[in-house]
Amino acid sequence: MSFLVSPLAPKKLVKFSKLDGVNVSSVHCGLKKNKKDDLVLIKFSKPGLIYGVFTKSNTPGEPVIWNKSIINKAKISALLINSGNANVFNGRKGKISVKEILKKLSNEMKIHVNEIYLASTGVIGEPLEHSKIISKIPFLVANLNNNQESWVKAANAIRTTDTFAKYHSEKLEMKTKEKIFINGLAKGSGMIAPNMATMLSFIITNANLSSPNCFKRFKDCVDKTFNSITVDSDMSTSDMVLLISLKNQNKIMNRKIFNHFFNKLEKLMMKLSHYIVKDGEGAKKFISINVSGTDTTSNAKKIGFSIANSPLFKTAMAGSDSNWGRIIMAIGKSGVKVDSENISIKFGENFIVKNGEIFKKINFKKINNYLKKSHVNLYVKVGLEKNSSTVWTCDLTNEYISINADYRS
Amino acid sequence: MSFLVSPLAPKKLVKFSKLDGVNVSSVHCGLKKNKKDDLVLIKFSKPGLIYGVFTKSNTPGEPVIWNKSIINKAKISALLINSGNANVFNGRKGKISVKEILKKLSNEMKIHVNEIYLASTGVIGEPLEHSKIISKIPFLVANLNNNQESWVKAANAIRTTDTFAKYHSEKLEMKTKEKIFINGLAKGSGMIAPNMATMLSFIITNANLSSPNCFKRFKDCVDKTFNSITVDSDMSTSDMVLLISLKNQNKIMNRKIFNHFFNKLEKLMMKLSHYIVKDGEGAKKFISINVSGTDTTSNAKKIGFSIANSPLFKTAMAGSDSNWGRIIMAIGKSGVKVDSENISIKFGENFIVKNGEIFKKINFKKINNYLKKSHVNLYVKVGLEKNSSTVWTCDLTNEYISINADYRS
Repeated sequence: MSFLVSPLAPKKLVKFSKLDGVNVSSVHCGLKKNKKDDLVLIKFSKPGLIYGVFTKSNTPGEPVIWNKSIINKAKISALLINSGNANVFNGRKGKISVKEILKKLSNEMKIHVNEIYLASTGVIGEPLEHSKIISKIPFLVANLNNNQESWVKAANAIRTTDTFAKYHSEKLEMKTKEKIFINGLAKGSGMIAPNMATMLSFIITNANLSSPNCFKRFKDCVDKTFNSITVDSDMSTSDMVLLISLKNQNKIMNRKIFNHFFNKLEKLMMKLSHYIVKDGEGAKKFISINVSGTDTTSNAKKIGFSIANSPLFKTAMAGSDSNWGRIIMAIGKSGVKVDSENISIKFGENFIVKNGEIFKKINFKKINNYLKKSHVNLYVKVGLEKNSSTVWTCDLTNEYISINADYRS
Repeated sequence: MSFLVSPLAPKKLVKFSKLDGVNVSSVHCGLKKNKKDDLVLIKFSKPGLIYGVFTKSNTPGEPVIWNKSIINKAKISALLINSGNANVFNGRKGKISVKEILKKLSNEMKIHVNEIYLASTGVIGEPLEHSKIISKIPFLVANLNNNQESWVKAANAIRTTDTFAKYHSEKLEMKTKEKIFINGLAKGSGMIAPNMATMLSFIITNANLSSPNCFKRFKDCVDKTFNSITVDSDMSTSDMVLLISLKNQNKIMNRKIFNHFFNKLEKLMMKLSHYIVKDGEGAKKFISINVSGTDTTSNAKKIGFSIANSPLFKTAMAGSDSNWGRIIMAIGKSGVKVDSENISIKFGENFIVKNGEIFKKINFKKINNYLKKSHVNLYVKVGLEKNSSTVWTCDLTNEYISINADYRS
């Protein structure tokens, strides 16, 4: 039995902020077998500035290929997202689908194809019935709206195996009259792995992001958030995070506001990426793994992911079992050189290993009670250097197997 | 519920061949909680020649550290194996255990410590109660034997979560009166992953392996067999494969017999490594993945393991679901450059993808029936180059979760 809604779902989500100059509409076009919405159009009144981070898969989806071909122009007027079919590995047919959809959108909206971005998520390797999408484009264009309800509807329409819609909003308190808002939505639940973005995430802000350092800062945020989560170690073909700035709404940020903005952006992306882990297929526990004491941040992350992707660690977590031998195993297989005599391991505040040996005053009862909680913090120190990294994952339960042993049937 | 015996267990095993000059004994010393044997001594009348391949883990067990420190001497008089405790990550205590055990064995058997090899398998990170082992050494030394029953007893004593004992024997038919035999035993079921040997495997032969090329050929065999299997992508801290030649029993092999010998050795190692996959925790299906069309063998293997370690692929197999989108995903995340238009995928003789597109005459009924079998062959072609590699794995079932969510309790 799988859950109707993940037990880790947040009780309340932060509402979208009102952003002028951007409208959205959703509809059911027939790609999902149920009657739920599966197509979303986002329209920008003036062309926005866009940055993107895409999957590193060598068999990427057609929308990824298309977006990457135009993103150096950095201009966006429309974004069309469908769920139910990922348009991946459909050969020539996949490219024709993209071309036909772009043609229709371009004609209907009177915008250049190079300003139209696409995203698809769902089944891989089955031809996309693009006629279903094309027939609904006039409806989408005619029904664009900027109210709360429309945005929540869009966050729901991009779901596949997600058990809840994922969105978040942040704002910058400013001394001037200017107001800066950041809205973000995301989807993802299975096929979630490091080394890329996540499934799909779209972030829209009215901050002016034209200064040259923005992409680097955005990429840093991706690395600390979406690139620091894993559900099942499987990297999707369709992953992308797009950051869109509604141009000319606000002036260029000074250094202080600039830093403030990227802190808020990171916070928003953290929220969204954690929502994805919390909606991990079959997940009952949200696990934060902090690794410290390494020579580089990337080595800390490597160890973190080695633990987070270990099925033996993840099943131990499902069983609330403090089997730290599996943590040692995962540290060992990471390939990172470690100083065994300086390894320490804590669950929450409870030491289980200290300085390379089992902790003398270990309190198994306390640890076992701690591990029964829905949120678990694991701290691993592997040496005396100064770098650290945190990654997030969920447990591996019978429900993951049940969901995935018959996803298509 | 987990199985008493894996449904993939072989119906019959090939008996050990009689090898003079090597004796074995087993006993229960108290490391396993049940009353089953957990300690094995193998004694060589004359020092044998030894080659070894060990885990690449950076947190290896004490026996691995010890064996690696003496293997350049290539001389073995005794091998002591215990199950129930892996003697990994026990700090100074772990080293003391090794020293005490070696001292006792050396005194009792009148052999140099540098000719004594050790292997331990079981729980990680709990101090090894070496007094239990030491107290049984006189019994083991007094009860050495070379009959069939003693060897089968030894193969059983090294089991941990294994549901069946694993051994095999091969012989070379020769024109001369000389007879060459190869006996091998192994254990392994969980924490089985590429990039190393397997859990534990010991191979003994009366062939003369003193020619300089032997280690390289042995290592090649390991790469094609034990290094080509995965159950759960988790690399053990205790892995080793030891190949032992009973010295001076036969003369140096000529080139033809040499090649013949290594073919037989590979066959034996293939059998043992497949037994480990067939005893994979919760396994109901044995899956062979052949990847071809790559520029190098190692790239073919990389793709093979990317598929074999994908939880989404493995759960699809558990559900007898021909979800080839997940195979495309796994090819994509492997990092190996592929030619999408030349990807072909077959289950058994049934094409599902041909030359980069879904196969036109696809017969889902036939494929689904094929996937219900206990042995599945997957063929993946990713380009027009000539190299290929085969890896073996099992499906990921609810039983894997049940076994591992409460292994220690």
